[in-house]
Amino acid sequence: MDAETTIFDAARALGIGIKSLCGGKGICGKCKIMVEGGEGALSDLSDAELERLTREEVEKGYRLACRAVVKDSVVATVPEESRTGKQRLQIEGVETLIDLEPLTKKLVVKLPAPSLGDQISDVDRLLRSLKDLYGLRSVKIDYAVLGKLPRVLRESEWTVTAILWDDEEIIDTEGGVTDYNYGVAVDIGTTKIAVYLVDLNSGRTLCSMGFMNPQIPYGEDVMSRIAYSMKGPSALEELQRSVVQGVNEALGSLTEEAGVRLENIYEMTFVGNTAMHHLLLKIDPKFVALAPYTPVVRGALRVKTSTLGLNANPNANAYFLPVIAGFVGSDCVADILATEIYKSKALSFLIDVGTNTEIVIGNEEKLVACSCASGPAFEGAHIEHGMRAATGAIERVKIDPKNLEAECQTVNRSKPIGICGSALVDIIAEMLKVGVIDLHGTFNRDLSNPNIRRGKDGAMEFVLARKEETATNRDITITQRDVRELQLAKAAMYTGASILMKKLGISVDDIERAFIAGAFGNYIDPENARIIGMYPDIPSERVKFVGNAAGSGARMALISGKAKRIAETISRSVNYVELAADPFFQSEFVKAIYLPHQELERFPRVKELLKTHQK
Amino acid sequence: MDAETTIFDAARALGIGIKSLCGGKGICGKCKIMVEGGEGALSDLSDAELERLTREEVEKGYRLACRAVVKDSVVATVPEESRTGKQRLQIEGVETLIDLEPLTKKLVVKLPAPSLGDQISDVDRLLRSLKDLYGLRSVKIDYAVLGKLPRVLRESEWTVTAILWDDEEIIDTEGGVTDYNYGVAVDIGTTKIAVYLVDLNSGRTLCSMGFMNPQIPYGEDVMSRIAYSMKGPSALEELQRSVVQGVNEALGSLTEEAGVRLENIYEMTFVGNTAMHHLLLKIDPKFVALAPYTPVVRGALRVKTSTLGLNANPNANAYFLPVIAGFVGSDCVADILATEIYKSKALSFLIDVGTNTEIVIGNEEKLVACSCASGPAFEGAHIEHGMRAATGAIERVKIDPKNLEAECQTVNRSKPIGICGSALVDIIAEMLKVGVIDLHGTFNRDLSNPNIRRGKDGAMEFVLARKEETATNRDITITQRDVRELQLAKAAMYTGASILMKKLGISVDDIERAFIAGAFGNYIDPENARIIGMYPDIPSERVKFVGNAAGSGARMALISGKAKRIAETISRSVNYVELAADPFFQSEFVKAIYLPHQELERFPRVKELLKTHQK
Repeated sequence: MDAETTIFDAARALGIGIKSLCGGKGICGKCKIMVEGGEGALSDLSDAELERLTREEVEKGYRLACRAVVKDSVVATVPEESRTGKQRLQIEGVETLIDLEPLTKKLVVKLPAPSLGDQISDVDRLLRSLKDLYGLRSVKIDYAVLGKLPRVLRESEWTVTAILWDDEEIIDTEGGVTDYNYGVAVDIGTTKIAVYLVDLNSGRTLCSMGFMNPQIPYGEDVMSRIAYSMKGPSALEELQRSVVQGVNEALGSLTEEAGVRLENIYEMTFVGNTAMHHLLLKIDPKFVALAPYTPVVRGALRVKTSTLGLNANPNANAYFLPVIAGFVGSDCVADILATEIYKSKALSFLIDVGTNTEIVIGNEEKLVACSCASGPAFEGAHIEHGMRAATGAIERVKIDPKNLEAECQTVNRSKPIGICGSALVDIIAEMLKVGVIDLHGTFNRDLSNPNIRRGKDGAMEFVLARKEETATNRDITITQRDVRELQLAKAAMYTGASILMKKLGISVDDIERAFIAGAFGNYIDPENARIIGMYPDIPSERVKFVGNAAGSGARMALISGKAKRIAETISRSVNYVELAADPFFQSEFVKAIYLPHQELERFPRVKELLKTHQK
Repeated sequence: MDAETTIFDAARALGIGIKSLCGGKGICGKCKIMVEGGEGALSDLSDAELERLTREEVEKGYRLACRAVVKDSVVATVPEESRTGKQRLQIEGVETLIDLEPLTKKLVVKLPAPSLGDQISDVDRLLRSLKDLYGLRSVKIDYAVLGKLPRVLRESEWTVTAILWDDEEIIDTEGGVTDYNYGVAVDIGTTKIAVYLVDLNSGRTLCSMGFMNPQIPYGEDVMSRIAYSMKGPSALEELQRSVVQGVNEALGSLTEEAGVRLENIYEMTFVGNTAMHHLLLKIDPKFVALAPYTPVVRGALRVKTSTLGLNANPNANAYFLPVIAGFVGSDCVADILATEIYKSKALSFLIDVGTNTEIVIGNEEKLVACSCASGPAFEGAHIEHGMRAATGAIERVKIDPKNLEAECQTVNRSKPIGICGSALVDIIAEMLKVGVIDLHGTFNRDLSNPNIRRGKDGAMEFVLARKEETATNRDITITQRDVRELQLAKAAMYTGASILMKKLGISVDDIERAFIAGAFGNYIDPENARIIGMYPDIPSERVKFVGNAAGSGARMALISGKAKRIAETISRSVNYVELAADPFFQSEFVKAIYLPHQELERFPRVKELLKTHQK
């Protein structure tokens, strides 16, 4: 072994990651290791170590890995806080391994103080040291940093931490050695926004929260929100401000919870459908809503948080993952990233259920995607007794085939108030199984049961809960109209899947894996969803529920420059299929309105299931 | 000749520049030429020509050069408005030839309208056409453009003009074909600001104006202004706002005068000393004033005008030429650019006289520069009856050797109020010639003349104008203290020149050309300046007065990307000499206080001159 090999060098050669901010120059003090045997085979304690280690640490055998030169065999432990390495990003149902390599990095530099013999500018001095210490030759400094730079350099006596973006731009500087490095990933849903505070040194999510999109009062779905934005520039600004304010409140709560300062958030990533993406960027989303549904911008965007009014480090980069098309947004790109279907040999099916449902089918060779206007029915809107999945919402339903009594489970087990999306899937499937409705979705008028009756307007309805049992003192029912609403919604989804399969020339049996995403999708009963024909008849063992995969993709892009580049490739390479332009759309859609489908042979497994229920 | 060669192609092959915004695609209509013979040898009028040419133009024989295919010999004239080519940039005394090649360009593109079969985003559509039509492959679009882009594209029915910076960034878009393209060059002096409105299509300066730096109330010279900025961040902001407001007022006046709209100013260039540069950028200039006098940033900077509060196109680039050192600013870089001493074989001497005087000596191989704290004496400050060169200021003085009567010429020929800088040079030189003062600058008490007397404080003074002749009803005199002030100022300048010459190992006779710059320098009598020893004894025929060369350099950088690159090279390659660090500074300075110098052999020509005057 080379006489001048340090523990740091030796560990790196062995593939063991030891943390370092200064690249092994004895400045940052982050590469502490504990020597457990063979102390004599190490160089003496250096001045840098005496400065950076406490007396207690020295007594315990701590050294700085970058200063301890190895002369013979040594046994050493790398404590948890000094380790780097692969991070696991857990998302419900899928586990994605990703290397921690954030584009936002901290680098510590110790500069020689200026003198009459060395009068170069503060910026040149900093860049010179970044070149000398880290070999970075083409770094630029953002104008916004220049205001504080001279003070930071001098107050810290020329030891500073530079915050770099992609090894090419200094976005901030801090006096002395600072190592905290935080980022935030945001998934902007039409209905719900999820915000994740992430430690960029470990890749761990420190805390997260979800809240209703504050734009909801301006319109429940994408179309009505776009319509609102069309009232003029001030309406667009109002929408932008409201969502930024919501994110800012979340940033306030999360940083307080984690004991993090807002100015130490150096990067944010954003995903969302194209309309939400445009609205947050204050880009007119009108043309997304009008044929031929073009977005204003597809590629990834990088905007300063201060430009958007976001409360983070004012010079932090807000990175917007690229979208695919007007109705297939960066949330779908993030889904693809998180499920890794883009690099799988297996033919995969991905559906992200929401007000707009995105479907992607394919594998590493080819991916096709479409968007279905599934509407807000699955979120409880346009349904007589529909509601969101809040306390008192019926979320699960079973109907007893003997007496046609519904057994309802509610959110937080409180008295029922209404019906949320997951229960709607159950209700339709259960009513079909017990014969309350037929394959056309029409109520069976021949059944004589108090729960099947004519409602106020004379149309048929099914009673789920009687007023004595409800919190509203009214019967909670599902009407013929509700059933039709659900049929249209699920038909839209199935039609999308069907047309994509046709484009690829595949049948349902070719699909090897299926991912159901969407915060909502997580609570659907998979068998019931299949029974009503929400998606093709894929065997249950091939189906995985992956929860908010879009949020996971946003976090992956946050902690990895490589993930960002992959997202760009995905955005460019996915083939968007415009359903409205497909000649088979109408006829496919009409057939898909049936439960599960007019052509029952497309649902062989459901056909079997129903045989055991329906007569 | 190739059957498909157009007049445009043929002209280009012959090196004749014909204007075109669309690169010869028949879109912009800018390449009109007039056919004077051989019409039959041209292709028939195309649809594009019938659309772009008026009936009258067609009758006169006009064609679009890019549409008219040449089949045989043709005689054609390129009218003035369709010509491109080298532009002359006239500056007083020097004429600099520079190719017109602004980084800010307008490109016209006609995009295919989107359809269900071509749904790419607006940005991708624009970039695709820029690639297809102009071969530009790596263009980015600024976020600020995205707000208006969808509207501009559709209102103009997909024919738009993109404003590009350096073929890489779209900074704005305008509907239809627009060709106006304006820029503004600004020279921020400590005392005076010069603003030039330039047509970037022709390189011509449309109009210009000079005005007092609005920061003057915060401090007359660089040091006192820096001291004010140190009162805190709000003081720095106040200084920044005041100069921006001044420039904005000038922009308002100039655009009104030229009939130009503010949003059609797409680029601005700025030069100034390092302190003025920092103040305009709201960068703390404190450390420029404290040893070792380092600037915060040296290299060129590009900042959006809106960030600085400048009233131009909000997304226009404000380009700050690089500085050299804390006391050698971008104005000096611009001087070097305009005088072209950086590419001359001849050993050149350049002095830019001001409150701080910059001196550069050298040639294409090596340039050395320094800054001398010459103080505000030459601008009339710290002088008993000193004033700026306003109406009533004595600007020229001759003293009759017989009766020692001063003959004074004033600005605008009105009654004298005080003395401005150019007259001070005359007065000292004339007093020396007629023996009122000696080589030490001391008044000759042996002369008996009513104009030589003791003033109120008992010190000697010389009467220039008696109260009966003045507008102030007071005698205007020059005092012993004034003479000393001037001696210190000129000694600082000469010492700088002297130390630079020593660094280069040259003598005054090696200097082949000398450029005297500075708005002030323009009015100095060169012989008198030499007599008092402001600069080395260079023969008058080698001396050129070049006026505001800094302003000329700023305009060159505005109309030429190449000039910008040269400025960067100059900034990096000029060797800055810190006078304070030179061991000979003190002794050289003391000797230079003499008139013209203690070692009279350094001024052989002046020695001869004085012989004819002094006894």
